[in-house]
Amino acid sequence: MSLSFQVEKVSGKARAGRLFTPHGEVETPVFMPVGTLASVKGVSQDTLEELGAQIILANTYHLYLRPGIGTIRRMGGLHDFMAWPRAILTDSGGFQVFSLNELRKITEEGVTFRSHLDGSTHFFSPESAIEAQIGLGADIIMAFDECTEYPADRDRMRASMGLTLRWAKRCKQYFEEHKQEVPWRSYGHVDTAALSSRGECQLAGDAPELRSTWTGASPVPTQTEQIQSLFGIVQGGMDHELRKESAERTIEIGFSGYAIGGLSVGEPRTLTREIVESTLEHLPADKPRYLMGVGTPEEIAEYARLGVDMMDCVLPTRAARHGLLFTSEGKISIKQARYAQDQGPLDPNCACRVCRRYSRAYVRHLYAANEVLAQVLNTVHNLSFYLDTMRRVRHSI
Amino acid sequence: MSLSFQVEKVSGKARAGRLFTPHGEVETPVFMPVGTLASVKGVSQDTLEELGAQIILANTYHLYLRPGIGTIRRMGGLHDFMAWPRAILTDSGGFQVFSLNELRKITEEGVTFRSHLDGSTHFFSPESAIEAQIGLGADIIMAFDECTEYPADRDRMRASMGLTLRWAKRCKQYFEEHKQEVPWRSYGHVDTAALSSRGECQLAGDAPELRSTWTGASPVPTQTEQIQSLFGIVQGGMDHELRKESAERTIEIGFSGYAIGGLSVGEPRTLTREIVESTLEHLPADKPRYLMGVGTPEEIAEYARLGVDMMDCVLPTRAARHGLLFTSEGKISIKQARYAQDQGPLDPNCACRVCRRYSRAYVRHLYAANEVLAQVLNTVHNLSFYLDTMRRVRHSI
Repeated sequence: MSLSFQVEKVSGKARAGRLFTPHGEVETPVFMPVGTLASVKGVSQDTLEELGAQIILANTYHLYLRPGIGTIRRMGGLHDFMAWPRAILTDSGGFQVFSLNELRKITEEGVTFRSHLDGSTHFFSPESAIEAQIGLGADIIMAFDECTEYPADRDRMRASMGLTLRWAKRCKQYFEEHKQEVPWRSYGHVDTAALSSRGECQLAGDAPELRSTWTGASPVPTQTEQIQSLFGIVQGGMDHELRKESAERTIEIGFSGYAIGGLSVGEPRTLTREIVESTLEHLPADKPRYLMGVGTPEEIAEYARLGVDMMDCVLPTRAARHGLLFTSEGKISIKQARYAQDQGPLDPNCACRVCRRYSRAYVRHLYAANEVLAQVLNTVHNLSFYLDTMRRVRHSI
Repeated sequence: MSLSFQVEKVSGKARAGRLFTPHGEVETPVFMPVGTLASVKGVSQDTLEELGAQIILANTYHLYLRPGIGTIRRMGGLHDFMAWPRAILTDSGGFQVFSLNELRKITEEGVTFRSHLDGSTHFFSPESAIEAQIGLGADIIMAFDECTEYPADRDRMRASMGLTLRWAKRCKQYFEEHKQEVPWRSYGHVDTAALSSRGECQLAGDAPELRSTWTGASPVPTQTEQIQSLFGIVQGGMDHELRKESAERTIEIGFSGYAIGGLSVGEPRTLTREIVESTLEHLPADKPRYLMGVGTPEEIAEYARLGVDMMDCVLPTRAARHGLLFTSEGKISIKQARYAQDQGPLDPNCACRVCRRYSRAYVRHLYAANEVLAQVLNTVHNLSFYLDTMRRVRHSI
């Protein structure tokens, strides 16, 4: 297997485990910060490392448009391009394209869509989505699925699920035929120690399109471990039977891990929870389970206790940009005038470098004055809060 | 004296020295990063420390409007407010108000101006500008001057210089009468070690309006050293005789240091240099000399070699936001397509944490995609380049 996953401890339905990726270990349950355009908005990679982020997510759709898959492939893949030596997961673009609404057209073959940037027309198929993700070179890549809209009737949910399953097979087949083409494969993984040596880097002259910018990223012998892992995605709308069928048939195709997609699309939270809980019952215990695109700190803790191993969400980073902070005392809006002279930290129970140093009064001032540092500090705190939340859950298992 | 200044080495006209401020030592010649609104745009205070910044500048006019002097005074002054334990210099607001053009009216008493934010009317006098700067509590504060516009005829330059001198006297007098009112005075200076202990901070319950948020900022006995220093500003337009007269009469009033103001207001660079050179001849050798608001890396190096001890400029931070980078190979515009696949660092001869880690291709992508991290990384590099430039000049003296 390209990805090994060990469940180390089980408590009720919750599991504490460990993912071994070509770019390091990931302790699960894990929250993955979202770095849409190969950057977790406002946060440097050094800071992400300090925060203890072991894996981040990047979006294929956005990177396909800017700077383009070819550019990132030529730079040695996403890890080299963004100077991030730890694990990366890319989505397939399916959900992003789904979000475009009027700008897309879906057929059996794939999805024709128009760029949100310039209106230009593009086409993603299961094959091209995997090709793009191989070019990006994330450790974990996702099958190209159709995210069923909400609400939808049963026929629509069933048809959509069927399409996702047929696409899943095509993704698997394309991946098996092309998985050797990952840009970093013949160059080994990047280690953290190499990060301090850019200044002395030597570039391999004979392979300019694939050369690494880090001296530490020297070629290693081809190993079966040094390839990406492909996850399947369970769909089936809000129907328990269809979710079960989708899970079973996705498992039949066979993937390194299984994601629950098609949630957080407008349905009530209680329904989300029900679908998550019932779908988890049908997923194999020895493979990582990834719940896509959720949620609040309370929700990610709850889902982890239900047996989810991996989660991602834009909430901590997006909320930060709007001055919303997650704290041990609940959510606060730092823009409020009540914080203008509040000398306390953002969260009295948080030990992140923002809470150790800055006051609410200062961060409130930065936000009110539209200073970029407000976004930076808010994001660092929120990510710290999310990552801490997950570490606490893991510890409690 | 509140500020002690030692000239340690002289080479030609250049001097290597050391400023002793209530918030630490400053090696001169020094470049002061500009933190207009109590934040060097996009850069955290941790990073400024790592870059080796020993003193930063903040703008009285901007802080007076947002968040207001009263708020910062109640937070214990700028150092506590922005969690910056090292030295700070504030300008007087004179230049900012000068820049408002149509929005201001100057009389003998002071300047009536309208806020660039909401058009509200305000009044700065020499007294109120010093009062504001005492409230902010920077280590070095500046006399309130009139920055003479360029071009101006000799009568206008003489009249303007005369006004600045009369205002300088009033500044000095107000400062002498009120310098005990600095917010941090009776609470001592803040030391760096305290920065890691916010989580355990104990707030002094009996003085909530002045309490420190850092445990390390404990009250110390009143000492004459624990007050601010006031600098005078030499004006006189582009006239050598008037500059000489302004220098002599400002020195007669007596300040802890002397600034050269009224330059970089549209005059040719050769004229700037001439005026700087001739004005420096009239400034005392045993006091720090501060050239306000210049310049490019080449210029700050040149002015240091002419005998200037302190400089500030928005250029490295502002240029960074426009994708302009200062490097050992000249200025580059990272937005250019030629860098899209350039795996080299921003500057091959720079050892800053940006150049050690990231490629031009990555930073170019961030800039093109409008990612905030582009501003952050560009600013860190440019500041590093400026601070390195000054360290090299100091070393060469």
